[in-house]
Amino acid sequence: MTRTRTAATFPPPVMEARRWIEGVTFPEDRPLINVSQAAPVDPPPLEMRQAMAAYASIEDSAHLYGPVLGNSALRSELASQISDHYGAPVVQEQVAITSGCNQAFAAAISSITDQGDEVILPTPWYFNHKMWLDMTGVNAIDLRTDDGLLPEVNAARDLITDKTRAIALVTPNNPGGVEYPAELLRAFFELSRETGIKLLVDETYRDFDSRSGPPHDLFAQPGWDDTLIHLYSFSKAYRLTGHRVGAVATSPSLLSEIEKFLDTVAICPNQIGQFGALWGMQNLSQWLADERREILDRRAVITRQLPKLTGKGWRLLGLGAYFAYFEHPFDISSDDLARQLVTDASILLLPGTMFMPDHDPAGKRQVRIAFANLDRNGITVLFDRLHALSF
Amino acid sequence: MTRTRTAATFPPPVMEARRWIEGVTFPEDRPLINVSQAAPVDPPPLEMRQAMAAYASIEDSAHLYGPVLGNSALRSELASQISDHYGAPVVQEQVAITSGCNQAFAAAISSITDQGDEVILPTPWYFNHKMWLDMTGVNAIDLRTDDGLLPEVNAARDLITDKTRAIALVTPNNPGGVEYPAELLRAFFELSRETGIKLLVDETYRDFDSRSGPPHDLFAQPGWDDTLIHLYSFSKAYRLTGHRVGAVATSPSLLSEIEKFLDTVAICPNQIGQFGALWGMQNLSQWLADERREILDRRAVITRQLPKLTGKGWRLLGLGAYFAYFEHPFDISSDDLARQLVTDASILLLPGTMFMPDHDPAGKRQVRIAFANLDRNGITVLFDRLHALSF
Repeated sequence: MTRTRTAATFPPPVMEARRWIEGVTFPEDRPLINVSQAAPVDPPPLEMRQAMAAYASIEDSAHLYGPVLGNSALRSELASQISDHYGAPVVQEQVAITSGCNQAFAAAISSITDQGDEVILPTPWYFNHKMWLDMTGVNAIDLRTDDGLLPEVNAARDLITDKTRAIALVTPNNPGGVEYPAELLRAFFELSRETGIKLLVDETYRDFDSRSGPPHDLFAQPGWDDTLIHLYSFSKAYRLTGHRVGAVATSPSLLSEIEKFLDTVAICPNQIGQFGALWGMQNLSQWLADERREILDRRAVITRQLPKLTGKGWRLLGLGAYFAYFEHPFDISSDDLARQLVTDASILLLPGTMFMPDHDPAGKRQVRIAFANLDRNGITVLFDRLHALSF
Repeated sequence: MTRTRTAATFPPPVMEARRWIEGVTFPEDRPLINVSQAAPVDPPPLEMRQAMAAYASIEDSAHLYGPVLGNSALRSELASQISDHYGAPVVQEQVAITSGCNQAFAAAISSITDQGDEVILPTPWYFNHKMWLDMTGVNAIDLRTDDGLLPEVNAARDLITDKTRAIALVTPNNPGGVEYPAELLRAFFELSRETGIKLLVDETYRDFDSRSGPPHDLFAQPGWDDTLIHLYSFSKAYRLTGHRVGAVATSPSLLSEIEKFLDTVAICPNQIGQFGALWGMQNLSQWLADERREILDRRAVITRQLPKLTGKGWRLLGLGAYFAYFEHPFDISSDDLARQLVTDASILLLPGTMFMPDHDPAGKRQVRIAFANLDRNGITVLFDRLHALSF
């Protein structure tokens, strides 16, 4: 077979998991619990849907091309909210809008790497990051994390070569849930600056961080935009997954490079999605605060239910954002386990093998549970089903 | 400077041209005529905007993730309309939806090429095709066209090496306007099949072809999907540029590869754009027929106005779809000419240098006029201004 870019990587895990439940009939008294995808399953609030509908109906610009790097009003509002959230000045020229946060990552990587370069990813990693590196000919160098899924700065330093172009972190972490301490992010920033590489920080789940105050001080560092590439998504906060709106913050000169990629792969972010993101930021701050509290409540339920599983040999490795990441106690690989859970327990979750390189056996012992769509009762039922398992 | 993917290519031409008019004040009696971008400047019909608004307001699924390769209803409708348009059976499994036609090209190229491979592009080329090839490490091999901007099959054959993976054609052509004869496309298809490479045919402007009946018989060839990759855009036909909806038709196995790229770069096409495309296909066939007639009328006006320019040494190289492609008579390079036209004649057009490799001097003598947004009077004024020029 001919070597191609796409042949260098694996099929989309979420689509693969969807196929596991195709044609499966679940018992009436044991319906499917789907904890595979990290996405809201409810639409945005009614007022926001109505505002978007009015925009589509009335505004011509809703249907026409906009600037490649996104609309000025949205860039400006996001810069202002980043400034508030992190307590440091960020301006519109340091911010661009993308068609989702995956695209922001792809564009950023393509603006800083070439064939054969290296990017360091802590494991477990976010699979779409790994997939893009594979497809663009960049070697993903896996950085093992500690028992609490945190990467260690000196271990990263040991992996840096003259091919290394960046370290890419995700906090709060997908799939691990863990919130990276501000000091750890700062240490990674200093390492990156010192070695002349970029630090990508994907903060898709920023709005569900359990901590109050700025999650890090990187935007406050002089010349932050020479080193930092910050990624954000509007999909989770405002339930806009079907609209594809994300963002990137870095230096204006790097955004000019990113603009080439976005022009060629997207031309511009779609207008209604951008409108929704702007409307959400301007009108839903209280609603979003309630959403966050709800997610934190669900997380607390998981903590309370935990003994059901630890008593059976499960180990919680990370908990936060939308995710609980576990080590399972069974003598089968997590990908076999995940498939059996569909038929045996009506549970769809993703196996750790989807977040790990093949050479690291740890993935076979791990599973990710995206719990954000389960209410208290749903979490209890899920834990009861997992408690009852034996293989 | 570090070598990067984006550094391998040039800035987006349309954005560059926009910068030429930034801050320029145009005389009241000579307002700007913008013939730089090939896009509708009017929104879709009111009923369609209202249908999209109702969908956004009422349907939860409008706001949630969908399948990576697009919604089943849209794939099915497009397959059916391709079958009708080309008089040959195409099924849903051979069709996928993308976030615009540029993305369809990028995804297709990444599914059939690797670093250092070659793809043959007739010149003048569509710049975003060239940009993606640059960024993904594929060498664009330029194929000179004849006096009528048509590529020649034997000339293409001479360019094929063991690195060649595809020939990419655009018909009706951007920037040249020319409609490729069915026999020419068939000959390129046979050459591609015979040499085991892919034939990409971008038919973004399909709906404005002046000919009646199927524009080619490629879909009728047995096993067409082993060789052909057809690209389409809903943006021009239904005025959906701000929604980013395009499509690709090829074999289901290649679509599985394309799915990896789309998942990583977009996750899914946005829902409202997909709804608009489906609604348009189901409800706007008469409206679209009128749109086509209007474009063909404007094209006829250009033909009638032509003596004004040919008398001054201009030469029309191609005319069709949204475009007139000219050789200009002046002793300055087209990129200088284009910039001077902004201040001297209040005209924004794109120079041939944006559609040509640096080593081919022909681009310096050429300009593209995207006339679709000019009414009869606008075309007359444009030609009068060009007629009056002297350098």
